[in-house]
Amino acid sequence: MKLLEDRIRQDGVVKAGGVLKVDSFLNHQLDVALLEELAGEFYRLFREEGVTKILTIEASGIAIAALTAQKFAVPALFAKKSRTSNMAGDVYTAPVESFTHGVTYQVMVSRDFLRPQDRVLLIDDFLANGKALEGLWSLVKQAGATAVGAGVCVEKAFQPGGDALRNQGLRVEALARIASMDETGVTFC
Amino acid sequence: MKLLEDRIRQDGVVKAGGVLKVDSFLNHQLDVALLEELAGEFYRLFREEGVTKILTIEASGIAIAALTAQKFAVPALFAKKSRTSNMAGDVYTAPVESFTHGVTYQVMVSRDFLRPQDRVLLIDDFLANGKALEGLWSLVKQAGATAVGAGVCVEKAFQPGGDALRNQGLRVEALARIASMDETGVTFC
Repeated sequence: MKLLEDRIRQDGVVKAGGVLKVDSFLNHQLDVALLEELAGEFYRLFREEGVTKILTIEASGIAIAALTAQKFAVPALFAKKSRTSNMAGDVYTAPVESFTHGVTYQVMVSRDFLRPQDRVLLIDDFLANGKALEGLWSLVKQAGATAVGAGVCVEKAFQPGGDALRNQGLRVEALARIASMDETGVTFC
Repeated sequence: MKLLEDRIRQDGVVKAGGVLKVDSFLNHQLDVALLEELAGEFYRLFREEGVTKILTIEASGIAIAALTAQKFAVPALFAKKSRTSNMAGDVYTAPVESFTHGVTYQVMVSRDFLRPQDRVLLIDDFLANGKALEGLWSLVKQAGATAVGAGVCVEKAFQPGGDALRNQGLRVEALARIASMDETGVTFC
């Protein structure tokens, strides 16, 4: 999506260690008008899929998920992170390894909000190693619901997560796919 | 706001220990159509204030903050939580004591995104002891910016946070103010 690629070229900052900082518009400060355009693109891509719920993971997926839910006129649901594996109550849980923070979180959603008849669109801001989407997909499968696909704003296509998920049969749509990046700039696929 | 009070009466669940569960529509699953109505009410209340930025705290404030930012056509910014006090880079930080989790977090925002000329509306889903809003307000003051007020969805008015902030001069608007609650139900102010 040219709008997002242009914005990444303009305001993204590539840091040492393969980190792309987009915190001026995507995941700290939020350019809500831009996010609304991205949400509209997710709607265009998945509107034939009978989506009943948007599922994301706290914290930086929540804004784009809420705006996407607005386009589909369905509820959004965000999985919560915990460092402990003994969650209270009736929840589905899945482990998610965070390379950025070097820890494994448990993510969880209440069983009340994912039902077998749900057709779920997974949404997140970033896709790199794919562990977060894999965890969300696991929650959907535990509920006996259907994941119609995943919409992510930015995919680091030089990391294996996106293709691993596609090879497992998940439809993954990324609005900007980064082929490579270094201090001199970003190249898109 | 009658719409929110009615929804709390209908779907809120009062748990032991003074916990009001509203996770079916406000802070786990999100009824985005409802949140949009609440955001519109924040706009009505604060539209004369020249708001340039919406500030909230991760994670459950993000959706309502993004939808409020949409109404004002300004960016949203969410403060991040950390358990460590040595944050990297150019950030403002403030401690926030969490009674629910029994720990003190550091909340932080990048200095790049709060400027002295900013007129900031603080947004959160809940107000009880007021520590989260106090931390956000501190970030705004550190930046030399102006907090035009705080909009919260639900205030537990039987806890001291809201009045403490009002006594310190912050305009606090709550869309539903709970006077008391127990297993038999909720009474609004």
